[in-house]
Formats: sequence, C-alpha cells, structure tokens
Amino acid sequence: MTEAPHLSPERFRELGHRLIDWIADYHASLETRAVTSRARPGDLLTRLAESAPEQPGDAGEWERIIRDLDELIVPGLMHWQSPRFFGYFPCNCSMPGVLGSLVSAGLNVNGMLWATSPAATELEMRMLDWVGEMIGLPEQFTFRSSRGGGCIQGTASEATLVALLAARARAMRAGVDGAQMCVYASRHAHSSVIKAAMIAGLAATPEDRARVRLLECDVAHRLDPLALRGAIERDLRDGLVPTFVCATLGTTSSEAVDPLEAIGRMLEGLEIEPWVHVDAAYTGAALVCPEYRWMLEGIERADSFCFNPHKWLLTNFDCDLMWTRDRGALTDALSVTPEYLRNVPSESGEVIDYRDWQIPLGRSFRALKLWFVIRHYGVEGLRAHIRGHVALAKRLEDRLRGDERFVLASPRVTGLVCFRLRGGDEPTQRLLERINQSGKAFVSHTRLPDSEGVERLVLRVAIGAPATSERHVEELWELIDGAA
Amino acid sequence: MTEAPHLSPERFRELGHRLIDWIADYHASLETRAVTSRARPGDLLTRLAESAPEQPGDAGEWERIIRDLDELIVPGLMHWQSPRFFGYFPCNCSMPGVLGSLVSAGLNVNGMLWATSPAATELEMRMLDWVGEMIGLPEQFTFRSSRGGGCIQGTASEATLVALLAARARAMRAGVDGAQMCVYASRHAHSSVIKAAMIAGLAATPEDRARVRLLECDVAHRLDPLALRGAIERDLRDGLVPTFVCATLGTTSSEAVDPLEAIGRMLEGLEIEPWVHVDAAYTGAALVCPEYRWMLEGIERADSFCFNPHKWLLTNFDCDLMWTRDRGALTDALSVTPEYLRNVPSESGEVIDYRDWQIPLGRSFRALKLWFVIRHYGVEGLRAHIRGHVALAKRLEDRLRGDERFVLASPRVTGLVCFRLRGGDEPTQRLLERINQSGKAFVSHTRLPDSEGVERLVLRVAIGAPATSERHVEELWELIDGAA
Repeated sequence: MTEAPHLSPERFRELGHRLIDWIADYHASLETRAVTSRARPGDLLTRLAESAPEQPGDAGEWERIIRDLDELIVPGLMHWQSPRFFGYFPCNCSMPGVLGSLVSAGLNVNGMLWATSPAATELEMRMLDWVGEMIGLPEQFTFRSSRGGGCIQGTASEATLVALLAARARAMRAGVDGAQMCVYASRHAHSSVIKAAMIAGLAATPEDRARVRLLECDVAHRLDPLALRGAIERDLRDGLVPTFVCATLGTTSSEAVDPLEAIGRMLEGLEIEPWVHVDAAYTGAALVCPEYRWMLEGIERADSFCFNPHKWLLTNFDCDLMWTRDRGALTDALSVTPEYLRNVPSESGEVIDYRDWQIPLGRSFRALKLWFVIRHYGVEGLRAHIRGHVALAKRLEDRLRGDERFVLASPRVTGLVCFRLRGGDEPTQRLLERINQSGKAFVSHTRLPDSEGVERLVLRVAIGAPATSERHVEELWELIDGAA
Repeated sequence: MTEAPHLSPERFRELGHRLIDWIADYHASLETRAVTSRARPGDLLTRLAESAPEQPGDAGEWERIIRDLDELIVPGLMHWQSPRFFGYFPCNCSMPGVLGSLVSAGLNVNGMLWATSPAATELEMRMLDWVGEMIGLPEQFTFRSSRGGGCIQGTASEATLVALLAARARAMRAGVDGAQMCVYASRHAHSSVIKAAMIAGLAATPEDRARVRLLECDVAHRLDPLALRGAIERDLRDGLVPTFVCATLGTTSSEAVDPLEAIGRMLEGLEIEPWVHVDAAYTGAALVCPEYRWMLEGIERADSFCFNPHKWLLTNFDCDLMWTRDRGALTDALSVTPEYLRNVPSESGEVIDYRDWQIPLGRSFRALKLWFVIRHYGVEGLRAHIRGHVALAKRLEDRLRGDERFVLASPRVTGLVCFRLRGGDEPTQRLLERINQSGKAFVSHTRLPDSEGVERLVLRVAIGAPATSERHVEELWELIDGAA
C-alpha cells in the first residue's frame, strides 16, 4: 500500500450524517434503556479481536463499526445522559455542546500558545469573562482586571492541583520551605485535594496528615472556621506555614457549602497569606441564578475559583472553568519555555499563553462548545435548566421529609438530595441495591455522620441530567417508596 | 422562562449535518488558505460581545453562529491540518478520528471507574494491547501480562508526570526520602520533564538543578550514556538516589533517539533501580513500521513508555498512549478512594479503574476514536501514512544536502528535517520569517549545537499533516530555495 486510505469527503459526509442521526436516536432511546450496564468484567474484552486488523476496513467496515457501537459498546455503558441518572454528579451533554465538540474535533487545532491559534485563546478568554460575570464573580477574577483571568482546565482535580502549585510557588518566593507548607480543607472536601497534595509532594500517602489538615465540620457538613483557626495556630506554633486552603461550595457527599467569609476572617493577620482556592465543581453552575449568590459572600479573599460547566451547565466533558485574581502566580508555577516554543507575541507580553496555566502543554479548542451552549441557551435558558432541576429536588425532598421511614441526611442546597432509611445501614444498603438493580434509576451513595456523629450510609440523588423531568423524579420516588 | 430551550432532535440533526459538511468544506479549503493567522493580539476580543446574551438565541442564531465560525474564528486559527503545516510536530486529524470524537461527545459518558461504563474501560484496555503489539512493545507492557498494561492520557506531559510520580512512590516504599531523589534526562528532553519535576516538588524553578540532571548529548543530540553514568556516580557519592530517568525516542528539537540499551546498562547494579520512562511522543507513531523498531532495543529495562497517536497517527487530539510494566506502581501513586467512589467491582480487584492511572478523576471515552481510526486504516494503512511522509522528508533532506547554501543540523530519523543556512543565525532567522510570512508554509525553529558546539538557530520541518503530499513539499522547497 503506498497511500493511506483516507475517507473520501463524500463518504465522511455520509457517515457523519448517519452518526449525527445515531446520536439523536441514542438520546431518544435513553427513556427506555436501563440506566446501568449489566456487563460483567471481561464481557467486552472477550468479544473484541485480540489484535488490530492488518488491512484497512473494506466497503462494509463502517456498517460493522456502527453495528458494533449498538451491539458491543452501548450495552456496556452507564448512560450518564439518561433522564434516570441520579448518581455521583451529573455529566451534562447538550446538543449545542455536541456540535461544539464536533467543530472543535474537525478543526483540531492546538492552542498551546496564543500564536498557535489566536482565536482559540481569545475566545476562551472572553468565555471566562462571560461566565465569570454570569455567576457573579468579582471583576478582579476576570480579564477586565489587570492581574486576574481564567482558563479552561480539564477537570476540577486539575484546577485544585494548579491552585496548589501556584500557592506553593508563591510561598516559596516568600521564603517558605517546601517542608513547612500546610494544606487545609474540610474532611468533606473532594479527594482531589489529597491527590493534589500527593502529586505536589506534600503528602506521601492518602492517609499522610503530616502537612494536610482535613478539618472537622458542623452539623451541616460545612468546614468549621474555628477548627481551621485552631489547626493554623497549632501549625504556626510548630513552625509550619499555612500555605493552601481549599474551600468547597458544594461538597461531593452532601453539597455542603463552606463559609467563605468566616474562613477569610480566620486567615486575617497571618504573616504569609495562604492561597485560598474555592472548589465549586458542581454547585458553581447554580450561581447563574442570583438566588444562590449568597455562597459567594467572602469570595474577594479567595485567590482562585473553579466550577465545571461539564457537570451541570449543559457543556460536554471536559470543561472546568478556573479563575484567579493572580494569574502571574499560575504562570510562575507552571511556565517552562524551551527554545522551540519561543515566539514574538509571547515575548511581547501582550498575549496569554494558556500552556502556562495548566499541567499539559497541548490543548484543544474547548471554548467553542461553551460558546455554542451560551449562545444557544442564553443566561436565562441556563437559569431555567438549573431552576427546573432544583424544583424537582425540592419536591423529592418534600416527599422524603413527609415520610417517617426516611431521614434527610443533610440540608438540601440545590439539586442534591441525601437521605437514608431509619434503622441502620443495612436497610439503606438494600434500598440502594434494589433501586440500582431495577435499571429504572441509578443513584449513588456516601457516608455522613448522623446527629450523634455516627457515620451512616446515605443515598445521594443528584438531579441534573438534561432530560430529567417531573415524571422521572416521580417514578424514582415510586421506586424508593416501593423498595423501602 | 420555565424550561431550558433545548435543541429539538430535528434541529440537531439538521445542524449536525450542516456542521459535518462545514468540516468537510473547511478541510477542502485548507489547500488555498494561508497556514497561519494574520490576527494581532485582541483582534477577536474586540469583535466579541463583552457579556453573555441574556436571552436564548432566536431562530436566526445558529445561522449567525455558523457565519461567525467562518468570519471570526477560522481567520484567527493556525491551520494545523493544512497540507502546508510543517511546524512543531503534527497534530493529526482524520475523518475517522472526527467521527469517533463525535460519537464520544454524543454519548458523553464518564469512564472514571470500570463501573461507570465498563465498555469504555475495556475498549481502552484492548486498544492499548492492539497498539502495543502494533508498535512492537514487549508483552510485559500489555494487559496480556499479569502486571502490565496501559491507558490513554491527555498528553505526553501528563504521561511523564504520572511516570515520575510512580517512580517517586516506588522509591519512597524502598525507603528513599523525597529530598534525595534525582531525575535524569538529556538536555534535549522535552520541557515537560522539568515541568513534571517542578510539579512533583523536585525542582523549585525551571533552572533548579539541585536534583534534576539534564545530561550532555553526542553529536547527534542523543543522551550520552557515559554522562548519565557519571552523573549517577556523583549523585550516589553525594548521598542522593537516582530515581527517575526519562529517555526520549525522538526529541522535539531534532528527533534524536536516546540509546535505550546503553542507558539500561548504565543503570545495572544500582541498589535501588530508578524508574525508566521512555517518551516517544512523536516518533512512537513510526514504530508501526518494523524498519524503525531498532529504537526499541533495550526497551525491556524501561518501566513505562508513551507516544501520542494525536501527533502522527491520525487520531484526533487528545490521545497519548502510556504503557507500564508495573501498573501497581501507578495506582500506588495515584489512588485515593473516598466512600462515594467505592463499588463492588472495584473492590473485587477484577477490574481496572482508570481514574487511578491519571491526574484527573473524570475521563471521557477517548478509546472510541482510536478504535475507529485503526479499524478504518488497518495497520497497513497506518504504515502507508507514516512511510509516505518519511519519503517526503527524505526527498527534502536530499535537496538540502545537495545544496551548498544549507547545513543539515541533525541526522534525519523519520519525518523531521532540521537545517540552517550557512553563515550564522541572521540569514536563518530571515529565512524563517520569509517562509512563515508567505502564508504558503509554516515551519518552526529550535537551537542546536553545530559541530563545534556553538548553538545555532535551526529550522524544523516536520512532515506529518495527513493532507501533505509530494506537491506541498515541492512547493516548500521552492519557497526555501527562493527565500534563501
């Protein structure tokens, strides 16, 4: 073979149209599909060829590929877009988001530097300003200020890591030794805080607490500011330096909202100011609605903030938005410039090179899908999306509250409802299994302390899949009711 | 507004078909477009609205979006898919890759755990085994062995970081203190090695050489094994512990291939075995052709290996493949398991949870696009793709070698040709500017030592865009010839 057998443009058009239709059909089918896969370990592996095909696909290969999608792949998926998906946090897909992902794949540019696609960088900058304003972030976090701005990261885990690295670099410049640096978060903060500390070398194992403080919470599972103050004072006495505080707006277990203002007050007067990162991965989407902006009280003290439009704001994975008041701290921590990346615009200082804001070097054009989503829905449309789900969550909460069999395990904030059965973990575990084995809904679980501080198994119902409507939550309630 | 204004399935089909056609048209237009953008800093920013639209798009909004793609976005891109793109390394797009990206966006599942989409994990496992075999990796790096296997990372930078973290965790278990750990790579290794060391806390700045050794190279810019041995001996005398060696198959500046076997020999007899990572980000694609497998001699000693099908193997960004002989070392370094992620299959130990192989938690279904690409092209088709470009690179190299005005700055290995003009950097700089300002080609640059060890400005011509054919390289030669 002397030439690679590229798809002809005609065949690409034809297959592209078919796969667009296939996606529409897939979404239409979700209503009647079991949410979770019944696959057992190895089921797909045993049905795939052991080795790659030596020869190019023949005329029928794409028919077989599409058939295999239906017969091999789809049955092995958890359908995160099902209207009956209530597990973890939502992972929103929307048709404008799919179209944006498609165009981005078709262009396939690498916006590592401004110079390697100016429009990719500038559209991303403007999207960060748009969304920053939409959710009520102070101007100092946007490019409208002289030192702030934001970028798209892959996930909130990466934003947490980048924030920690910026914190470490800033503390190092202030003369703090790496071995003195301490990290603080609530015990309900996301596991990515510990993972970031491990990656940065501040913790040897997930259990290493030499320099990581996971602080006690109040009855609503929010970080207790006095616990923070106490830990800081102990560390200062021991010659350690508070370097990084991660506050969470909407913890994974129960959507607890840490009190930013009180946290900020606890940090006043410290000789070296710790970096405060705010992880609003899930709940941040709700900030498009002014009624949730109370959570941002005290945000002025934060150094960085992130949330994931790919969770609950109709933007396909991956899209975490991260803002900082001090973009220089990010680039100080992450910029390494070999000769082969030098270029005139970068050296002019007039442009943003997003490679210096992130772990990887290369980066795709993710701003496009966000642009499509915002232009299609408008801020009002996004608010309707959030408010619709919150109303459904409230209705479910009301049902549970009105029924003596159930205990609400935490106050509902937006779309997440956490509850358990009275009478210990075993009935709750059986309820979880019955719901998920039914295929008619998928919910996930966590453990939360009850009013006496005993850790209890808790079911989490996160309402946020775009297709979820009143009927689906009603059916979930019937399922819970019947299985309980 | 009480309901989010989702796109109707009918309108999605219609717009999806149009954007598929738009992508085909875009690719057809690349032949006649200038490769680089003439945009100046701020050009797009000044043309975008300052704030997000409050209301959803009206009936004409998608017409305006598509018009804006043409008028605002495309003119601000560097066209990485242009047949005249010869800069950096290629960033391959193919129509099967676009279709795979599309389906993945349409499904939008999160395969963080096996349980959250078994087929996503198992297809990825099998793709890693397929490609491992295709490029001649020993079985111990695949899931056919009991301890090996691989996964898709976003970029080679992430693979390098993950490998370094695995190295650090393994050394820590052997009792090595973090402060003793040393990292080795050639001075031509990718900047991501230093960046990974900074992230992991082994270097404070890009220039910090307390524990990072960037070793001297031979005349072909390959790591000098004796320099490695010397550095190791000095470090051992100083009480430090060699922990991580990054060898490169195909450096960014000149595609130099570090000698794996000789490197392995230098490490023999060390009390604590350093982790050896092999970064073949670009050149790894060529290993689908047996004639390049000589590079893999000595690979048995490596602990991990990666290359990027998103560079030169027709798979859309992002897709870095990383294999290891010791998958337990990756998960030891990266696994943090909160209650809300616990599940029966994970605890059975029968499944792979890819979240523990990577920095982020969430992950998209990237194996689909690779599956589409391999099934469409077959291994023979991929070999034709590589061999076609290599033949063009050789032809350009022959032209340059036969012309006294030019000096080849390094031996050509596969598709990258590095050269300069005789007579100092200034004429070479002018040549670079003339080529790139013409819009008729884009090449990038680096600095490489000449035969007397003086660093010289060098032009890099990387031939690898899928649409590049004989004619485009001929026209590039005419451009070089005329401008020189």
